[in-house]
Amino acid sequence: RIMRPDDANIAGNVHGGTILKMIEEAGAIISTRHCNSQEGEACVAALARVERTDFLSPMCIGEVANVSAEITYTSRHSVEVQVNVMSENILTGAKKLTNKATLWYVPLSLKNVNKVLEVPPIQYARKEQEDEGKKRYEEQKLDRLETKQRNGDVMLPVINPEPHTVGYSQSSLIHLVGPSDCTLLGFVHGGVTMKLMDEVAGIVAARHCKTNIVTASVDAINFHEKIKKGCVITVSGRMTFTSNKSMEIEVFVDADPFVDEPRERYRAVSAFFTYVSLSKEGKPLPVPQLLTETEDEKRRFEEGKGRYLQTKAKRQAQMQQAAQ
Amino acid sequence: RIMRPDDANIAGNVHGGTILKMIEEAGAIISTRHCNSQEGEACVAALARVERTDFLSPMCIGEVANVSAEITYTSRHSVEVQVNVMSENILTGAKKLTNKATLWYVPLSLKNVNKVLEVPPIQYARKEQEDEGKKRYEEQKLDRLETKQRNGDVMLPVINPEPHTVGYSQSSLIHLVGPSDCTLLGFVHGGVTMKLMDEVAGIVAARHCKTNIVTASVDAINFHEKIKKGCVITVSGRMTFTSNKSMEIEVFVDADPFVDEPRERYRAVSAFFTYVSLSKEGKPLPVPQLLTETEDEKRRFEEGKGRYLQTKAKRQAQMQQAAQ
Amino acid sequence: RIMRPDDANIAGNVHGGTILKMIEEAGAIISTRHCNSQEGEACVAALARVERTDFLSPMCIGEVANVSAEITYTSRHSVEVQVNVMSENILTGAKKLTNKATLWYVPLSLKNVNKVLEVPPIQYARKEQEDEGKKRYEEQKLDRLETKQRNGDVMLPVINPEPHTVGYSQSSLIHLVGPSDCTLLGFVHGGVTMKLMDEVAGIVAARHCKTNIVTASVDAINFHEKIKKGCVITVSGRMTFTSNKSMEIEVFVDADPFVDEPRERYRAVSAFFTYVSLSKEGKPLPVPQLLTETEDEKRRFEEGKGRYLQTKAKRQAQMQQAAQ
Repeated sequence: RIMRPDDANIAGNVHGGTILKMIEEAGAIISTRHCNSQEGEACVAALARVERTDFLSPMCIGEVANVSAEITYTSRHSVEVQVNVMSENILTGAKKLTNKATLWYVPLSLKNVNKVLEVPPIQYARKEQEDEGKKRYEEQKLDRLETKQRNGDVMLPVINPEPHTVGYSQSSLIHLVGPSDCTLLGFVHGGVTMKLMDEVAGIVAARHCKTNIVTASVDAINFHEKIKKGCVITVSGRMTFTSNKSMEIEVFVDADPFVDEPRERYRAVSAFFTYVSLSKEGKPLPVPQLLTETEDEKRRFEEGKGRYLQTKAKRQAQMQQAAQ
Repeated sequence: RIMRPDDANIAGNVHGGTILKMIEEAGAIISTRHCNSQEGEACVAALARVERTDFLSPMCIGEVANVSAEITYTSRHSVEVQVNVMSENILTGAKKLTNKATLWYVPLSLKNVNKVLEVPPIQYARKEQEDEGKKRYEEQKLDRLETKQRNGDVMLPVINPEPHTVGYSQSSLIHLVGPSDCTLLGFVHGGVTMKLMDEVAGIVAARHCKTNIVTASVDAINFHEKIKKGCVITVSGRMTFTSNKSMEIEVFVDADPFVDEPRERYRAVSAFFTYVSLSKEGKPLPVPQLLTETEDEKRRFEEGKGRYLQTKAKRQAQMQQAAQ
Repeated sequence: RIMRPDDANIAGNVHGGTILKMIEEAGAIISTRHCNSQEGEACVAALARVERTDFLSPMCIGEVANVSAEITYTSRHSVEVQVNVMSENILTGAKKLTNKATLWYVPLSLKNVNKVLEVPPIQYARKEQEDEGKKRYEEQKLDRLETKQRNGDVMLPVINPEPHTVGYSQSSLIHLVGPSDCTLLGFVHGGVTMKLMDEVAGIVAARHCKTNIVTASVDAINFHEKIKKGCVITVSGRMTFTSNKSMEIEVFVDADPFVDEPRERYRAVSAFFTYVSLSKEGKPLPVPQLLTETEDEKRRFEEGKGRYLQTKAKRQAQMQQAAQ
């Protein structure tokens, strides 16, 4: 579809969240279709996890986004989908890869949303494809467990913060979940959640560096808890780390099923977004260093540094491999 | 309502699809109101057909669209509505006729969506009005039958197409039908479908000629099949014909009721859109000729030429009539 | 236009904010048209103030909103517009008055947004109409000055609040101002701001009483400061007063022109919204009493009580007058 003014920031760059939402919709369609391809109970595929994804080049207003999706692995109860997004300038014909993403879906029964159904197996062209898929499956399963533990963290408000401190840029929004945000099961689309998360993370980044910012990458996101229609969700973001030219922002999503529900407010999702600051010519700008004050902030900064160095090392290894 | 940036392309011209959607909403309101004006079963008017409509002058961001609708004929089971759209520049006060459209609606029972109800007859000022309406009614009925047969056609993907071939510009998008796309009966508004069709047709046209394009006219569209909430719809477009200054694009809408439905994917609508290419000053530009390769493409080109010449002849006849 | 699921809460009642947005759009169209009706500099009418408005009956999904607007008074630099909203059930034909609103607009030059232009005078049918209009004009001018002073107030975050305290339900959202939120001058439509204010106020009300809530009335709102495209706005709401069956919520809008602007965050608008809680049958429910803790909270509660009693007295006076 064509990118519209509302999909982009004032510099004309399409929001990362808009792209994540398109990716997730494509993934939800292909996996729901696959899971209903055999006789049996009807189901809707719910997003369980998105692997880390890099935004390779910014997309602009007026460009056409081409989204293609393919099922790459199935376990007994989950589907792995690979989605590619190409941006196409229809005036020049130029095409660029915007990003590649890997998503995991789980089929939930249409009649009983708490029942996970079985996934029809796919055929692999080669045995290695199945083995590699299984390895990816095991890895993400481990990572899911880890983030579940991290999820207790809470963001506290700060009064009269100094510039470039954590409290200075931290932001949150509330959103009342409406019908268009939801799947047939009455739960929020993962893509809608990711779009709101990117919106908050972008505001945190812009408040910190006061320039035009774009999403550079999103770390793996695990969707542990469903969010129901009618909930109020609070999306909060705080900066955790800055390198010379990038900012890492942690985002939490809390759901508050405040009408007709006995349940308390709960943490539904959390994730790390990385942003870069761009000049008017689209070149990366230096970023003001984040000032950490409390022990927790210093610890989170070090953890962010660890993730940053790990990603950098991985990327260099890949580039060396590619060069050989 | 005021036209917003999202209603328009990057040159500031409001999308034909936005206008078609407003027209259809006005038609649905007036015909639903009419069909419920007598005692009896409550019903919702569903769009059955839109007659060919020409876009007489482009509308721009910031202008106000004035939409007026009038019932012009009723048969036993259908309502003909005439809708006029005026664009008004509220800064200068200038008003222009943007287009006139004729739509046919059928009242479906609110309790049983497969039951077509009877339409209360309207009063005609003159007997000739009724006769002319009846003639239009018979004509469109015939045309509906014809398109029903054409609907089996399928669009195949092409790999590495040459510029200006059919495969080069053909495009498709998928859309998951959400609650706000639907009427009270849970079926997609005809106007929503037409907006998506115009979006795809516009991408095909822009890919072909790589300039700013606008909708010039839409051929009669017949809505043979309803599309239900929760369906995935695939909208595909391919170029069928080019004259010196216009492009004809055929658009198909296929619905895939992929959850909880025994039904296969089916063709819901198809239609021809005509686009022109505009210079920055708003003047029509020459269009690169469409290169046809297969027998089918050549046949469709000739058919398109037939429609083009027929329309041209009709218009000349009208102008001569007006000049006399 | 037809009310869609996205316009309403889960009980099917259209959000007050959706209605306020339609009212403001109608007002902006008619006053911009009027101010450009004479030769001279082109201008866009900007919303300066909305008088207190009551929501007389809830509107539902599937109903059609009929909005009509009329200019009722002009001063040298401002236009008073009266807007009526009728809801129409097109299945039964039943029409109800949803609300009446009075709005004040000021014409700003298209070339220089800081220049207020002169308004062409309207003709009055009777001399008394002009005198009454002038009286309303003087009254609102006084009230505008008063709220300007109140606007310094700040909402502080509360940690671990008790149920039914002010801190328990207070809420805020941030919104990045996009192109479709703005007028031709690049400033946010007053209606967009009011819709966001109603959204926050509704969440505060629902958090307090955990039931289905609807907007009952909105106190006069003054728009002292324009908000530019690209700003981040923070909309915050806190409960100030509860009667047996109503809740009063104060809402602030702060704008943060954080990119490429030397200006600090500033207060753009503030207003009081009144909500009632409805049972599933649509009957008003008792509301839990607001627990006030600080001196400021107690003072605001008393002020809210004052407004509540004043409104009640006015309404009784009107009813007695009507009965005579």
